[in-house]
Amino acid sequence: MEAKYFRDPIHGYIQVDHDIIYDLINSREFQRLRRIKQLGTSNCVFPGAEHTRFSHSLGAYHIARSIIERFEKSYADIWDSKNSLLTMVSALLHDIGHGAYSHTFELLFDTDHEALTQSIITSQNTEINSILSRVSPDFPSQVASVIDHSHPNQQVIQLISSQIDVDRMDYLLRDSYYTGTNYGNFELSHILRVMQPKANGICFSYQGMHAVEDYLLSRYQMYMQVYFHPASRSMEVILQNLLKRAKYLYPQQKNFFASNSPALIPFFEEKVNLTDYLKLDDGVLNTYFQSWIFSDDDILSDLADAFINRRLFKSFTYQEGQEGLIQELSKDIEAIGYDTNYYTGCHSNFNLPYDRYRPETSHPQTQIDILQKDGSLAELSSLSPLIQSLSGGNYGDHRFYFPKDMLLEDDLFQEAKGNFKSHIRNDQLI
Amino acid sequence: MEAKYFRDPIHGYIQVDHDIIYDLINSREFQRLRRIKQLGTSNCVFPGAEHTRFSHSLGAYHIARSIIERFEKSYADIWDSKNSLLTMVSALLHDIGHGAYSHTFELLFDTDHEALTQSIITSQNTEINSILSRVSPDFPSQVASVIDHSHPNQQVIQLISSQIDVDRMDYLLRDSYYTGTNYGNFELSHILRVMQPKANGICFSYQGMHAVEDYLLSRYQMYMQVYFHPASRSMEVILQNLLKRAKYLYPQQKNFFASNSPALIPFFEEKVNLTDYLKLDDGVLNTYFQSWIFSDDDILSDLADAFINRRLFKSFTYQEGQEGLIQELSKDIEAIGYDTNYYTGCHSNFNLPYDRYRPETSHPQTQIDILQKDGSLAELSSLSPLIQSLSGGNYGDHRFYFPKDMLLEDDLFQEAKGNFKSHIRNDQLI
Amino acid sequence: MEAKYFRDPIHGYIQVDHDIIYDLINSREFQRLRRIKQLGTSNCVFPGAEHTRFSHSLGAYHIARSIIERFEKSYADIWDSKNSLLTMVSALLHDIGHGAYSHTFELLFDTDHEALTQSIITSQNTEINSILSRVSPDFPSQVASVIDHSHPNQQVIQLISSQIDVDRMDYLLRDSYYTGTNYGNFELSHILRVMQPKANGICFSYQGMHAVEDYLLSRYQMYMQVYFHPASRSMEVILQNLLKRAKYLYPQQKNFFASNSPALIPFFEEKVNLTDYLKLDDGVLNTYFQSWIFSDDDILSDLADAFINRRLFKSFTYQEGQEGLIQELSKDIEAIGYDTNYYTGCHSNFNLPYDRYRPETSHPQTQIDILQKDGSLAELSSLSPLIQSLSGGNYGDHRFYFPKDMLLEDDLFQEAKGNFKSHIRNDQLI
Amino acid sequence: MEAKYFRDPIHGYIQVDHDIIYDLINSREFQRLRRIKQLGTSNCVFPGAEHTRFSHSLGAYHIARSIIERFEKSYADIWDSKNSLLTMVSALLHDIGHGAYSHTFELLFDTDHEALTQSIITSQNTEINSILSRVSPDFPSQVASVIDHSHPNQQVIQLISSQIDVDRMDYLLRDSYYTGTNYGNFELSHILRVMQPKANGICFSYQGMHAVEDYLLSRYQMYMQVYFHPASRSMEVILQNLLKRAKYLYPQQKNFFASNSPALIPFFEEKVNLTDYLKLDDGVLNTYFQSWIFSDDDILSDLADAFINRRLFKSFTYQEGQEGLIQELSKDIEAIGYDTNYYTGCHSNFNLPYDRYRPETSHPQTQIDILQKDGSLAELSSLSPLIQSLSGGNYGDHRFYFPKDMLLEDDLFQEAKGNFKSHIRNDQLI
Repeated sequence: MEAKYFRDPIHGYIQVDHDIIYDLINSREFQRLRRIKQLGTSNCVFPGAEHTRFSHSLGAYHIARSIIERFEKSYADIWDSKNSLLTMVSALLHDIGHGAYSHTFELLFDTDHEALTQSIITSQNTEINSILSRVSPDFPSQVASVIDHSHPNQQVIQLISSQIDVDRMDYLLRDSYYTGTNYGNFELSHILRVMQPKANGICFSYQGMHAVEDYLLSRYQMYMQVYFHPASRSMEVILQNLLKRAKYLYPQQKNFFASNSPALIPFFEEKVNLTDYLKLDDGVLNTYFQSWIFSDDDILSDLADAFINRRLFKSFTYQEGQEGLIQELSKDIEAIGYDTNYYTGCHSNFNLPYDRYRPETSHPQTQIDILQKDGSLAELSSLSPLIQSLSGGNYGDHRFYFPKDMLLEDDLFQEAKGNFKSHIRNDQLI
Repeated sequence: MEAKYFRDPIHGYIQVDHDIIYDLINSREFQRLRRIKQLGTSNCVFPGAEHTRFSHSLGAYHIARSIIERFEKSYADIWDSKNSLLTMVSALLHDIGHGAYSHTFELLFDTDHEALTQSIITSQNTEINSILSRVSPDFPSQVASVIDHSHPNQQVIQLISSQIDVDRMDYLLRDSYYTGTNYGNFELSHILRVMQPKANGICFSYQGMHAVEDYLLSRYQMYMQVYFHPASRSMEVILQNLLKRAKYLYPQQKNFFASNSPALIPFFEEKVNLTDYLKLDDGVLNTYFQSWIFSDDDILSDLADAFINRRLFKSFTYQEGQEGLIQELSKDIEAIGYDTNYYTGCHSNFNLPYDRYRPETSHPQTQIDILQKDGSLAELSSLSPLIQSLSGGNYGDHRFYFPKDMLLEDDLFQEAKGNFKSHIRNDQLI
Repeated sequence: MEAKYFRDPIHGYIQVDHDIIYDLINSREFQRLRRIKQLGTSNCVFPGAEHTRFSHSLGAYHIARSIIERFEKSYADIWDSKNSLLTMVSALLHDIGHGAYSHTFELLFDTDHEALTQSIITSQNTEINSILSRVSPDFPSQVASVIDHSHPNQQVIQLISSQIDVDRMDYLLRDSYYTGTNYGNFELSHILRVMQPKANGICFSYQGMHAVEDYLLSRYQMYMQVYFHPASRSMEVILQNLLKRAKYLYPQQKNFFASNSPALIPFFEEKVNLTDYLKLDDGVLNTYFQSWIFSDDDILSDLADAFINRRLFKSFTYQEGQEGLIQELSKDIEAIGYDTNYYTGCHSNFNLPYDRYRPETSHPQTQIDILQKDGSLAELSSLSPLIQSLSGGNYGDHRFYFPKDMLLEDDLFQEAKGNFKSHIRNDQLI
Repeated sequence: MEAKYFRDPIHGYIQVDHDIIYDLINSREFQRLRRIKQLGTSNCVFPGAEHTRFSHSLGAYHIARSIIERFEKSYADIWDSKNSLLTMVSALLHDIGHGAYSHTFELLFDTDHEALTQSIITSQNTEINSILSRVSPDFPSQVASVIDHSHPNQQVIQLISSQIDVDRMDYLLRDSYYTGTNYGNFELSHILRVMQPKANGICFSYQGMHAVEDYLLSRYQMYMQVYFHPASRSMEVILQNLLKRAKYLYPQQKNFFASNSPALIPFFEEKVNLTDYLKLDDGVLNTYFQSWIFSDDDILSDLADAFINRRLFKSFTYQEGQEGLIQELSKDIEAIGYDTNYYTGCHSNFNLPYDRYRPETSHPQTQIDILQKDGSLAELSSLSPLIQSLSGGNYGDHRFYFPKDMLLEDDLFQEAKGNFKSHIRNDQLI
């Protein structure tokens, strides 16, 4: 086919010259990613972060394509070009099962975007499956096995999913650009230049070790400063409580929800199929929440309004072991009239910036191997004191969310509020 | 108040230190701008262009604030600081009446975003009106008069709306960033540095003349290459035809539309009030269109699907005087089975890159005045041969849109398609 | 050879994977370009513009390499890969004969950097010649013929020297980056993507027409705002007058110059050979000028100090036909004690932003051809109204330089200064 | 005075609106900084890094000016505006005593750029002293005391010199830009926004803690990847050996050096005064080295050529305690004919990324204090686990440099070379 180009702020032009890729992009299921924001609720604190999973998926494909082009040219002995299309397709489709506000939504409705990804790829009813089947009858299941890590080829697996993969490399750069933070910037071109296939995976030439370090630091910083931002987590807590209230109300108010949020009914009824799932996107959910503002139920109405019009909960951090104290303080919140089932929430976010492979752990990481001048491999943290110091640690915090009202001056509830505030110092529970 | 900051990829940090501004941003009507894309259908061709009128409005406010800070400090004799808040508020609210896909929507439903802007500001039912009224009882109407150009102070008017104003300066930079094109880049800081109030308006010191030239060239290029892009206009034509079909069907299918698109009913009924209008946004309309895909009406369903899943019409350019030939060719389109009422459309886009003030014309432009070393003013095009050559011209094209099918090979309709194609060369009608 | 990389702010990494290229870069004559600033005296007004002809030459090579890689892959039928190395080498060496402050120096000493480029390439005493001869005995002369435009292959010629060539594309981006102006930015990757070889030269696909327009506008703006900046031209006038004075003094003060500026002696004696020429660079000349500050000759000393310590002449623009008036005003300058031979100067700078091929003119331009959808070629300005309006015009100005003193208040020379100033308004001669 | 602007790629426009600042910039001693590269020999590996101490000094001034403007406006109670000019001048002049290739030059000739800075500011023979004295008779000594840290006001001191000061903030951004690396990028505007004066120094609001972390990481990375780059250190070793050889030869070859390097004579004679020192710059030294290539002494000639034409030594890293082994290997180098006095060298570079104040150490650091929500101060590493892990550590390496020849294949010296190479693995001594 004649090459097509997508203009992209991160990568310049994204070239598509394989009809399978082009048709996948034009499929109904993939176009749907245009309507799902990459960063969910983060736009409440970074107003520029409106970018979608569509452009991220294109970006991940583009990085995969760049890598493969180099592998085919320079490492033909060790990279099997039969895996090239598989890798590009897997990169393009790795997020195809993501839905609106996935993480929160999954908590409430027990959906699983990874299972849905598998289903979209392998179910016979999707346009995507039908396009993939043109390659070969078992191509859909091959793609699915790459995405769920069960495919035998570790080179392909690691390109798609490892501590330094096409997904992470694209989203760090993209989220950095759209949030307007500099933290996520790293030298993609340098990393791509030193990336190499090895017998059973991927490694990086020693000449690019610092670029890999820089990538890991960027990732650490993006987690700490963007992905774990207290305000967007506040919106997640509100959303979670809002959906919890709707679920609670549904049995009593079926008509209200049927007319104001028809596509959610299968979820309330717990009879969801793929078609139902594909009907949801950010715009659909927000449309429903806007209509819920007019509900008779004060809690549903108020939380919907808080979510739509960005009225945030406040929060403090706490340590493990302080849960009892939080329960005490919850009474102060109830004392001034809030139902703590819907007006408070705990939210924990932790990230492992890097770890070497530890087979004994529950989720062993694929370590980053550096190819040294003499041809031997060395694990990254053994060479880099900086990465050594980050390695294996979990960084993040536990936060408790509560109504802003608790911090406002108020004659009526002096005691409850006073007690509550006396336990918070510098946004920490004491 | 303690200063608040919004992080913005274009301006770094946008500072808010006036409670009126902060409360306006938090108002329901302003938060709604988060759900309206700045560039409407352009994301179909620039996938990164998902930015909203919310961040653009903040950006316009920020530029206004920067200008005013300088005017207050360096031109206290000629800039009346009583106008400072008025200017910042007007910058913030200049787009407050914009709705989803405004330009297309207005064509079909006879709404007017400028009148709605006035209404949101002056109507007593809005949060915005109530916040503005805290400044003084007539402050809302002052703001409204700046936005509709009837305010007597030409300095304020020109900052908000002229050939080089805070709105245009922000959107060029922002649209350039989010589309990933370089064309719209110009030296904002240089222009802000040479901008001065004069007795009856705004002028620019001769030291910044080249930066002003560069701004005008950027604007010209953004029109030619982004705003007038044939593909996003294709989406506008599809949207227009889709809404036309819905209006046509409504009297026969009231129930269908009432359950699938409740917030549009007042528009179909032509009984719209402000509250109705404020219920619409991009997500709401897209949600409706997604449900229309399941309509029994083939045309409504097909156009809704084309809009949602990005199946574009093709187009050619034509000259005035060729309308007769277009009508001829429309018969070929009908011959292969398309209803040309819904499957074709003309779309004309023209822009005047710059003009001096010409009182005899229907829309005289506020010319750009350059303050020379000796203190005299000179109109820009009299000093710049490049601007002289652009000045007064209208650049753009007329395009006719039609189904892609007309260009595909096909045994059945060889004659109609052959005749049609014989009149197109290099995407021009011949 | 194993690929080597040069890190470059403009292009990221510049890859060298041919030993001829790598050895050329390491040659004595090429390393010398590290000591010659790309923009000569422009750093007096853009303090960041310290970049050298070395990095520009690498950049031109890099663009050539990118183009050729694409030509070899996609246009193997029309691009003869035997020309690939020739093109890359010519790009790398196109400026090899440039010396310190070339344009001014050539005026005074009748050297010619184009002839010197030929000589460095074809003379048997240079490292460059010896490296090139390893390719084939006639390779040096082939390279020389590309650079002087006499080579028969128009594809190669146009890549190296035409209205849109690797030289211009690199220097616009590079000069823009290092001066910190945005004007020279254009979309290199877009242009490279649409550039194609044709039977007798180079053309550009219609899909990139706007990017080519943008490049021409960038070029126009860089000329107007950077290359023709009055302050750097002031430094050129001072340098010219300084060297003129030195030439005048040399016969009387041979010892002074021999001990303070040995490498200039062959130039004063007008017996220059290539070895002499290669000894000069910016640092050597500046070292000499610094020592001239201590000369007994007041004019030599003062001009050397003005050049080294950046004390600029002032200037006004004038029109052709006003030379008589300038001669009149020169008397005012003499009246207050300045020798106008050394304290004034005319400096004219004009640029042709674009022109189509006009065989009847003295320097016919290679026009830019656009390859249309139907395969026909169209000359750029016939398609672009904006380029049409710029086409064929010469933009620039004539300036007269004089001592700043003429503008300062002064009791003693009121009449002469008063008369002088009365003829200047807004920096123009009236 | 009317404001003047310097265009700068890092900060946009640098505004000067105080005549003392403007006159200092135009002084002979400050203009000299135009001829001294900020990064010395780093341009051998980063060809874009040609930027000068002139633009860096302007940049440091600009950051100081931005901070002070904010301090005067928002912290008038704690920032004494009498210190504003002092701070800006100190920022501008902090590097005024730097000479060509300072660090290497100082090793050989026992000069001290810090003492020279003091001297330029306080000696009565400089233009700078004379300009500063216009402020008040003791102003020069005040400026000098800020720069040597003896001034009593800790706010001023810390702005000019601490772990996060105007010098470091400018050079990280600037060196990053000109080398074309991304590592040095951090969010200057964010840091400036949270910087506050406190009773006895400077602190940073908790809202900017992550930006401060990011700055420290950037600094760490610039040290590891740019400042400590093995290739530029190779050039330093060559330079050091070259100057050592010249010093050794001088007593025997006074005429040669007097005619080819007159400005160095006072240094060889060890009778240096300020005027002598100010005559040197990069161009002067390079001019001399170019003439030394023609020396009769093979070592001087060869090293001069190596420095000018970038023929690097190779290196390996070693640990403390391996010096004996290095001496062993030196014999292999001598065995093949190199004088190891001039053809080898050790070069150690270590950096302390951050430390809290430790009064017991030899060079206690000014710790970075974070101002918490409740008004208390906390030392940075107590809040940030990442900084905690970097804190107090020294990062860098010891390197031994030797002729590239030792690694080349060679029949004649198989044994010596073989033995030598057997002790190097992955560029480490084993």
